[in-house]
Amino acid sequence: MIYSQFKATLLLRLSADHNDDSKPDGYQVKNSGMLRRLTLFYFLLFSFQFAVAQKATWIWYPGDFEIELANKMQNRRTERGTFYPVFWKMDAHYVLVDFHKVFDVPQQEEVNIYVEGEYNVKLDGKLFEGSPGHIIVPAGKHKINIKVFNRGNVPAVFVKGKSVVSDSSWLVTFEDKEWIDESGKTSDVSATKWLKAGYWNFNLPSQLPSAFKLPVVKNSPVTTTKGNKSLFVDFGKETFGFIRLHGLKGKGKLSVYYGESREEALSADHCETLDRLDVNNTIKKEETLGLSKAFRYINVQYEGTVSLDSVSMLYEYADVKERGSFRCNDEEINKIYEVAKYTFHLNTREFFIDGIKRDRWVWSGDAYQSYLMNYYLYFDNETVTRTLLALRGKDPVTAHINTIMDYTFYWFLGIYDYYLYTGDKTFIQQFYPRMQSLMEYCIGRRDENGLMKGLPGDWIFIDWAAGLSKKGEVSFEQLLLARSLETMGLCAGIADDATGVARYKKLSEELRKKLFELYWNENKQALVHSRVDGKQTDNVTRYSNMFSIFFNYFNESQKQAVKKSVLLNENIQKITTPYMRFYELEALCAMGEQSYVLKEMKDYWGGMLKLGATSFWEEYNPGKKGAEHYSMYGREFGKSLCHAWGASPIYLLGKYYLGVKPASPGYATYDVEPNLGGLQWMEGKVPTPKGDIEIYVSREQVKVTGKTGIGTVRIKSKTLPTGKNVTAINKGENIYEITIQPGVEYVMNYSAL
Amino acid sequence: MIYSQFKATLLLRLSADHNDDSKPDGYQVKNSGMLRRLTLFYFLLFSFQFAVAQKATWIWYPGDFEIELANKMQNRRTERGTFYPVFWKMDAHYVLVDFHKVFDVPQQEEVNIYVEGEYNVKLDGKLFEGSPGHIIVPAGKHKINIKVFNRGNVPAVFVKGKSVVSDSSWLVTFEDKEWIDESGKTSDVSATKWLKAGYWNFNLPSQLPSAFKLPVVKNSPVTTTKGNKSLFVDFGKETFGFIRLHGLKGKGKLSVYYGESREEALSADHCETLDRLDVNNTIKKEETLGLSKAFRYINVQYEGTVSLDSVSMLYEYADVKERGSFRCNDEEINKIYEVAKYTFHLNTREFFIDGIKRDRWVWSGDAYQSYLMNYYLYFDNETVTRTLLALRGKDPVTAHINTIMDYTFYWFLGIYDYYLYTGDKTFIQQFYPRMQSLMEYCIGRRDENGLMKGLPGDWIFIDWAAGLSKKGEVSFEQLLLARSLETMGLCAGIADDATGVARYKKLSEELRKKLFELYWNENKQALVHSRVDGKQTDNVTRYSNMFSIFFNYFNESQKQAVKKSVLLNENIQKITTPYMRFYELEALCAMGEQSYVLKEMKDYWGGMLKLGATSFWEEYNPGKKGAEHYSMYGREFGKSLCHAWGASPIYLLGKYYLGVKPASPGYATYDVEPNLGGLQWMEGKVPTPKGDIEIYVSREQVKVTGKTGIGTVRIKSKTLPTGKNVTAINKGENIYEITIQPGVEYVMNYSAL
Repeated sequence: MIYSQFKATLLLRLSADHNDDSKPDGYQVKNSGMLRRLTLFYFLLFSFQFAVAQKATWIWYPGDFEIELANKMQNRRTERGTFYPVFWKMDAHYVLVDFHKVFDVPQQEEVNIYVEGEYNVKLDGKLFEGSPGHIIVPAGKHKINIKVFNRGNVPAVFVKGKSVVSDSSWLVTFEDKEWIDESGKTSDVSATKWLKAGYWNFNLPSQLPSAFKLPVVKNSPVTTTKGNKSLFVDFGKETFGFIRLHGLKGKGKLSVYYGESREEALSADHCETLDRLDVNNTIKKEETLGLSKAFRYINVQYEGTVSLDSVSMLYEYADVKERGSFRCNDEEINKIYEVAKYTFHLNTREFFIDGIKRDRWVWSGDAYQSYLMNYYLYFDNETVTRTLLALRGKDPVTAHINTIMDYTFYWFLGIYDYYLYTGDKTFIQQFYPRMQSLMEYCIGRRDENGLMKGLPGDWIFIDWAAGLSKKGEVSFEQLLLARSLETMGLCAGIADDATGVARYKKLSEELRKKLFELYWNENKQALVHSRVDGKQTDNVTRYSNMFSIFFNYFNESQKQAVKKSVLLNENIQKITTPYMRFYELEALCAMGEQSYVLKEMKDYWGGMLKLGATSFWEEYNPGKKGAEHYSMYGREFGKSLCHAWGASPIYLLGKYYLGVKPASPGYATYDVEPNLGGLQWMEGKVPTPKGDIEIYVSREQVKVTGKTGIGTVRIKSKTLPTGKNVTAINKGENIYEITIQPGVEYVMNYSAL
Repeated sequence: MIYSQFKATLLLRLSADHNDDSKPDGYQVKNSGMLRRLTLFYFLLFSFQFAVAQKATWIWYPGDFEIELANKMQNRRTERGTFYPVFWKMDAHYVLVDFHKVFDVPQQEEVNIYVEGEYNVKLDGKLFEGSPGHIIVPAGKHKINIKVFNRGNVPAVFVKGKSVVSDSSWLVTFEDKEWIDESGKTSDVSATKWLKAGYWNFNLPSQLPSAFKLPVVKNSPVTTTKGNKSLFVDFGKETFGFIRLHGLKGKGKLSVYYGESREEALSADHCETLDRLDVNNTIKKEETLGLSKAFRYINVQYEGTVSLDSVSMLYEYADVKERGSFRCNDEEINKIYEVAKYTFHLNTREFFIDGIKRDRWVWSGDAYQSYLMNYYLYFDNETVTRTLLALRGKDPVTAHINTIMDYTFYWFLGIYDYYLYTGDKTFIQQFYPRMQSLMEYCIGRRDENGLMKGLPGDWIFIDWAAGLSKKGEVSFEQLLLARSLETMGLCAGIADDATGVARYKKLSEELRKKLFELYWNENKQALVHSRVDGKQTDNVTRYSNMFSIFFNYFNESQKQAVKKSVLLNENIQKITTPYMRFYELEALCAMGEQSYVLKEMKDYWGGMLKLGATSFWEEYNPGKKGAEHYSMYGREFGKSLCHAWGASPIYLLGKYYLGVKPASPGYATYDVEPNLGGLQWMEGKVPTPKGDIEIYVSREQVKVTGKTGIGTVRIKSKTLPTGKNVTAINKGENIYEITIQPGVEYVMNYSAL
């Protein structure tokens, strides 16, 4: 059997590889030639075994890989060369985990076992001696347990036999409560809570979860300018990665100053990130810096006898696939869409992060927008759940997520949307207890009026806006809590918690009622910003008003009133962050103001492009000039010029122009309500769990093909839409509905109003 | 300045040492010659600086070093060569910790900083660039923050300047909640919960907390017997350490079988622990095995061309100091005391563990007895608090401690005693929140009658006793809960939680009342064992009756009744574990039955000695014969022959014969009520926080010198005691009290009844 020999040799090699703890930190799974050969080999092996073999993958306690990766990722921030970690609690993985599954094995088989950690193996409750690398499992029904201890890394298991393989159907616990009495009898373990194993895409024994790194690819600058003891380099656009110094020789200090703008790189004293090296090379050497960073410009300054030939980079990126798309007749909008995509791609890394230059942290409010953009571009569920898990951490809850009250609520909202877009119940069932404890934390912090008020240690963020009051009971926070409670009601149902369903439903209804009783001002025709000392304040801000629109908390007349009194009212404080522009424009779109929003988009995002932006910013105030744009937080270059929340056109164009959104969880049914908003034509794709929805829209024709679910196209037309496969139903007021079956192309000829 | 140069060189060396991550696992702080030299050097340095310098020590988040050490320690168990970890949740350290202190610095000084982990340093809120190894602190009031991230080991800090040093007065948190707004303004951090830093005795920069190991010393066997391809070795008595193989040569397999008994070592198939080696040496080599184990006998068996000259060991021990002592005219009692001390010493390791052969785990019920023994032998507070912290772990509480309901309650009782013996309020103040959450877990699991019943996943242990019922609501558990609630009331007071004081007092009083209403049986003149389906069972066991005596829950007539109806009643199921013998004999002593107990001690512990025991056992049933004694848990050699709970004579002789115990926390006041129990004379020392109490007692004379507090000697005498410094007060019924001032010797001549 050539195949068996082959396999044995391979496993031996992998095993040796696996046991090598001295592996350097720079070890790159994606870049190893040996591993690529192994992958090819495994591909052949898998092809050969295809008819019988199950797919094995590394598994762990769900959430633990994610939490550990967040620990590594979020503590990579530096500020001018200094380690700059987060200011909230970071949790850790369970150090001791039991994995098990019962298998029905058709024929005796050899099962190979790879483990990250110290471990033992049981077959039907009986321990093997030592920590076996492979075991023989006889035919029949058998239970396999693997118990793993690992302090430094997440306990993880990869099991590969013919039918016995590790995958998400294994059950795991951090307390098996399996003891014996004095006669040797084993305890009843029926009360142990077992979760389904966590996993991702580590499908080879050699792909250790603990060694995970993002892939990199080489990249060169567009221009290089040599000075006296200096080198200035421009990569042509915002980018991210590891700087590589070529031909580095001599002795002396070398500093690398990073800039998102030319001004920042040139400011040795005020640039936000830098690296310092002590060079001592008698021959020319290449040096790759250890920490990846954001930049467009690099300013290298050196002293002594140091000389340097050139600078290049290793571009570091997340290997996500673009599935959504948008194109239209307006080239400025197309450019905005492209730059939004690039901005979003740079900020989609191990997690959805806020911005690539400064924090590189996972912020719940920022991530919430990324989830939504993701549903219209990558539909990468893993990055969503990974981010949600990293944000949530573990019990006990000792603070709001990121310490920010609103950010706790966005976490719940993110789950609501995740379920709506993906239909994934397992995630909710597995993590419902973590949702409960976080919600109970919030409920326990309400004041005597049952409202959320900032307690010491709570950050009421809302938005970066000058003079925004955080005092008293802010309406925006109550609104988000109400929506979070609704989410809990939904999730309680999925998790079979009938008591929870009733409890959260009651709480959310009470709060929604209170919201209007306490904050609606008839004179102002708006929700006011806050209550202080039991009294409505005079202040009206956009936040709770715009959210109430797309939450559907207003009735139709309130909506129309608020549009005038708040959204389109120049006297209400303007929003200067793309963060809140996101929701402002969403609210306007939800009310059919696509033409207005298109103009706003061209003004605001187009405005940044006109200033030379190659990615979208953390904040943009058209009133500022030149390098003024780069300052924030009292620092000259404090502002991030590549911020995820700047990429919202991806979401707006997909959801409100192409007009696609799920009508029931996981796109089982969905709506298509295209709105050109003044464009001549547009076309694009919207990803769903089971394939894309393709759309073309002009003023005369709408074409839709959906790979999934049952769609309802809703178009406004002067005439009855007709065409290929089309049966339109007149819903009155020039609205027509066409039902879309999966896999069929519909061509609707109509006449736009 | 020669001194400065000296120091700079040293720090450089230490710093280099510190940065060496490749240090082998076997690195022994205690055995390094270099370090011994450094210690000497530092001693000189400290002497030189004595007038001005503060003592620096490594600090960490309190409880985290302890939890990590427990993770390492408890996962060292093996069963016949197989990794055998615990079955309850193991917690982890906080990976990100902020340390700070405000100093008033008399003169500008250089401060050296050593850190386990990645870190930054702030002076008055301003970050230094990079991770500085030393900083200059100007004269005046300054705040120093050090923020440390470490996934693999406990974040720890050692700071040493002239006045700026790291010690337990630093404050630490795992969430500093220090953020900035868009203008760069720092948040209010007044709500952050800061604890005092944890520390132990790592007083040199090079003594990394993460590298902590117990010290070892070489030891040789008493006899060595060579066989054909085998070597059989006897170390003369129970011992613990690393086996060392000398002159190991050739090629082939080698097995080491460990035995606490000769029979166990000889049983290759059934001994509890073993090691297997693949030998391949062309020249003779020495090999020290990697995992320390318990044994008296070693059976080495080898195959192929393997040859072996001899076997020795590295004895591994905790460096605790004996302070208590006991000697009397009865040599059997003296022998019992000596073997109890040795048993206790072997089981006093990183923590107070159960037994050295098998589990080597930290069990709360076992540890509780060790705490008490410790107060009469080592008075080593650190081992007590370290064990309490390791047992408690972190929130959330997901199970009882060690999964055992009674063991949760012993944890509270352990704190009660710790406070009584040591008077340490800081420990209680720091960990009161962990006490609260554990107690709330218990309170939340009471049934409709407000009683603790075993829920699925709860282990009701009580004792190893055949046929002992765990059904329904067991009286013993209610009794322990009542005492635990009293402890909480006490601790709430110390932690300034007035609500808690009231709440726990009410709960404990209600439960004590209920205990007698529901379980006291007038006919049986005893507390019954349990209630099942709301009805008293017929069964009377010793447990709740004997605890009610020394908890003082019975009135005097109940006590006397129970003594007859239960304690001295042959028809009540006998206790066969030293674990519960501890409390049974304590109850009898508390009622003045020292003569009876002395006989029992000679029978029971003397019985083990007569069978050749060199340490005391997990269980002893005089009815068994020969190797029958070694079996337990359905395994031939399952029983531990060196179990901490076997060492209780240390406690009984100190507390009930020498008769010394604290009357108020930390021995501010104390009682001495000597009771010869039939002995002619006895003498000994009892340690207290501030020095020992020395006692000599014969039938004619009592001599007491106490270094601490105010003592009250209480003796029964036919005549008024007189003598050096003695003023006796007649309390009636032949009882006399003499007040003892610290540091004064009292010689009381009296006439025993």
